[in-house]
Amino acid sequence: MTEKITISLDVMGGDHGVDVVLPAAKRVLEKRNDVTLLLVGDQDIIKHALDGLGLAEHPGLQIQHASQRVEMDELASRALRFKKDSSMRVAINMVKEGRAQACVSAGNTGALMATARYVLKTLPGIDRPAICTSLPSMMGHTWMLDLGANIDSSAEQLFQFALMGSVLASALDHKEAPRVGLLNVGEEEMKGNEVVKEAAGLLSSGALNYIGFVEGTDVYCSDVDVVVCDGFVGNISLKTSEGVAKMISHFIKKEFTRNILTRMAALFALPVLKAFRRQIDPRRYNGASLLGLRGSVIKSHGGADVLAFANAINVAIEVVEQNVPERIKSRLKIILSERQAS
Amino acid sequence: MTEKITISLDVMGGDHGVDVVLPAAKRVLEKRNDVTLLLVGDQDIIKHALDGLGLAEHPGLQIQHASQRVEMDELASRALRFKKDSSMRVAINMVKEGRAQACVSAGNTGALMATARYVLKTLPGIDRPAICTSLPSMMGHTWMLDLGANIDSSAEQLFQFALMGSVLASALDHKEAPRVGLLNVGEEEMKGNEVVKEAAGLLSSGALNYIGFVEGTDVYCSDVDVVVCDGFVGNISLKTSEGVAKMISHFIKKEFTRNILTRMAALFALPVLKAFRRQIDPRRYNGASLLGLRGSVIKSHGGADVLAFANAINVAIEVVEQNVPERIKSRLKIILSERQAS
Repeated sequence: MTEKITISLDVMGGDHGVDVVLPAAKRVLEKRNDVTLLLVGDQDIIKHALDGLGLAEHPGLQIQHASQRVEMDELASRALRFKKDSSMRVAINMVKEGRAQACVSAGNTGALMATARYVLKTLPGIDRPAICTSLPSMMGHTWMLDLGANIDSSAEQLFQFALMGSVLASALDHKEAPRVGLLNVGEEEMKGNEVVKEAAGLLSSGALNYIGFVEGTDVYCSDVDVVVCDGFVGNISLKTSEGVAKMISHFIKKEFTRNILTRMAALFALPVLKAFRRQIDPRRYNGASLLGLRGSVIKSHGGADVLAFANAINVAIEVVEQNVPERIKSRLKIILSERQAS
Repeated sequence: MTEKITISLDVMGGDHGVDVVLPAAKRVLEKRNDVTLLLVGDQDIIKHALDGLGLAEHPGLQIQHASQRVEMDELASRALRFKKDSSMRVAINMVKEGRAQACVSAGNTGALMATARYVLKTLPGIDRPAICTSLPSMMGHTWMLDLGANIDSSAEQLFQFALMGSVLASALDHKEAPRVGLLNVGEEEMKGNEVVKEAAGLLSSGALNYIGFVEGTDVYCSDVDVVVCDGFVGNISLKTSEGVAKMISHFIKKEFTRNILTRMAALFALPVLKAFRRQIDPRRYNGASLLGLRGSVIKSHGGADVLAFANAINVAIEVVEQNVPERIKSRLKIILSERQAS
């Protein structure tokens, strides 16, 4: 790739806005001088912050003014209607206009999804976009979707999610045929609700490397590459996982600070526990892809810190380098024409 | 309570059958000489095993012969039709006939649920039974249901689950008004699918201490006492949680065995990590209640060891002592008559 990549950043989005986005941008540019980051937001605030960071003249940074901000608890419909000059909307417009190849926002998920869908539109053959991220697993990592863009999904939509997840995993992990599993309450064929059973039928057609039903444990403990589910189940699974990890971390901390002896033990254990924690550090997994759009949009966690947001920017760069939307489009075209032929 | 409690045990059920159930029974009787355990299964196998354990003449043990065994992967419909003399079925019959007040089985969940429902019937006003267990949480523990008895649930059924979970939590934790939350993808009122929104309406009537929507993280990290969801979501959440815990344990082990230095650190850390592990030990949480039946049935994990199965027996004893089915019945009667009056 010799072509210059430009990523637009929603500077005002997320819990920390400019305080996280600009240092994260700096961090990314230290390693990638072939990338331009387009900072979208209040230009006075951005200029002031860049001065403070000694980045005023950085060749890799550009500013695009936007006068509004979408609040974290704002209704998507309200944001769509009344925030046409928000940093989020303008950052997405940059992708639409071809001035950026991807956009990153830590703004509220509902508004980001609705705006991205409204501005960019879905790819031909895709009913609804989905949110996909990678999660740590005993075998490396697992891609999971949908994580909350859609509450109810039809079997056909689950099939589309599987296809999009498979393309993303294939592109970013350089795997020929990622192993795709359908999340269910059991591995036996007769189990599950009607939608899941019907989706299993569609997935068995052979278009993807479908390995059958997988269970909740498999997300973290088996060699499935892509786990497909509807957004309700996906979002709850993801948040439950976060809860378990948080509780375990709480109990470990509590035990190691119980008394003088356990505090001494902690001195020895700390470096090891840190190495362990790095492996499942959610910041290293920050940056979920909104798949199925005519353009790339990456959602960062709202509370992301500098390391986490920098990771989301890196995901955006990779998605652009690997040309993910184009790959989904062409893969879909082949599958749809095969279906018509049969 | 001075009345003698009898619990029937499905001795042939689970992955380990007699090898786990009998030592677990012994363990329980060491502390509870006011309890009789009715061992249901092949009498020759049971007698032989009791001899081996030196329990042949134990006054707290009785044998009830059953000639068949339900396999772990057997279809519920098949078990119902062809295994009328299975240890599982006969153990449940004991409850029906009043010869035991509760039954414990580590046999396959589908068959156990179907058989229990067929033999015992549901309580008046309950459409479907649900599976409820307690899970470790930062605040102590949380009760969660349904964990897989029902794939699709109506709003009214979710309300019934909430009521049953609330009664169980109240009875076993001695809490006046347990805090009941409805599992959803966000805490805002406009979020979630239609069933969840409608259930929220029913729960807001004031019959229970309903605190609103809760998210996946809250199961393990907040002070909600009872988390209500349909069985599809509940089962997947539970298994995902197991997966996260397994992965974390795997990574901790891996880091501590990386080299000679980390192995030395492990020597210091081990007692602390063991204390931590005890707090979230799944064996201490073994024993899920099948709620909504005219009798008490406790489901043990199929792979339970002696400690875990003993825990499930203790749950059964507590459920009997606290008279849970009767409490659900009378609570339901009050709520239904209030509804009719309004």
